[in-house]
Amino acid sequence: MKRGGQGTSGKLRPFSIMDRKASVIWNGSLREGTGTLSTESGVLADTQYSFRTLFAEGRGTNPDELIAASLGGCFSMALSNELGTAGFHPQRIETTATATLEDLIAGWTLTRIQLDVHASVPDVSQAQFMKAALAAKTKCPVARLLNTTISMSASLNP
Amino acid sequence: MKRGGQGTSGKLRPFSIMDRKASVIWNGSLREGTGTLSTESGVLADTQYSFRTLFAEGRGTNPDELIAASLGGCFSMALSNELGTAGFHPQRIETTATATLEDLIAGWTLTRIQLDVHASVPDVSQAQFMKAALAAKTKCPVARLLNTTISMSASLNP
Repeated sequence: MKRGGQGTSGKLRPFSIMDRKASVIWNGSLREGTGTLSTESGVLADTQYSFRTLFAEGRGTNPDELIAASLGGCFSMALSNELGTAGFHPQRIETTATATLEDLIAGWTLTRIQLDVHASVPDVSQAQFMKAALAAKTKCPVARLLNTTISMSASLNP
Repeated sequence: MKRGGQGTSGKLRPFSIMDRKASVIWNGSLREGTGTLSTESGVLADTQYSFRTLFAEGRGTNPDELIAASLGGCFSMALSNELGTAGFHPQRIETTATATLEDLIAGWTLTRIQLDVHASVPDVSQAQFMKAALAAKTKCPVARLLNTTISMSASLNP
């Protein structure tokens, strides 16, 4: 995190800019080559990746499941925030994000992401919960970033 | 990976649809709560995450560095592919992706991603390399997905 401007006079407040970094090494051709991903946090650290899901040696990731994880994570925090702002105390939010890729004329395209949400939120009505879930889906930074169709099913745990 | 249609008669070829999945659990409020991410591949497995970069216990990730990793990974494979299609044999492509977030009126927004690329590609000219890099930046599925400004510096290793 670095300072975003001089004091509070401009568009940006102090600490209102953050950078997040990742490093990639790809060796060789697309089909026979191998790649590794590393993130600033160290959660990914020379982690194998490719467009495949099966790896000759151990586990690897792919760009598309990282998008699904990013959106699912962002949405779940945003839903917690929306519920909190409305005066509720969410206990547990479980979200599955499924990204679908299709081989279109433009090439492989991430055509949609489905969010399936189950939450435990004391004292909330179904309508209040759905309002918060829809707001989170609209406002979460990663949802605003993704140029794809995002659909959602959301339910409260009994 | 699942079959996308009946034979090859329709819009979709067999194996032309793929799903990529991630699961998220968020417990509690936005500020005090904790979350974990898991991906289908197992690379993320109940991995801590939040919007912070510092965690009370060990390492955690955040949605934004996952976006940077996804784009950097996708771009690097796409560049290998573009170079291969043009008849070159890339040895090594190193890409750093830096995502910048700004606190705008709409909320935290991923306003740009900078790609810094260094590559070892025998026999390629600077112009041929730049053409491939620009094509990769335009065509890679994650670049097409992201509604943000993507800038790039690309150079050949001597």
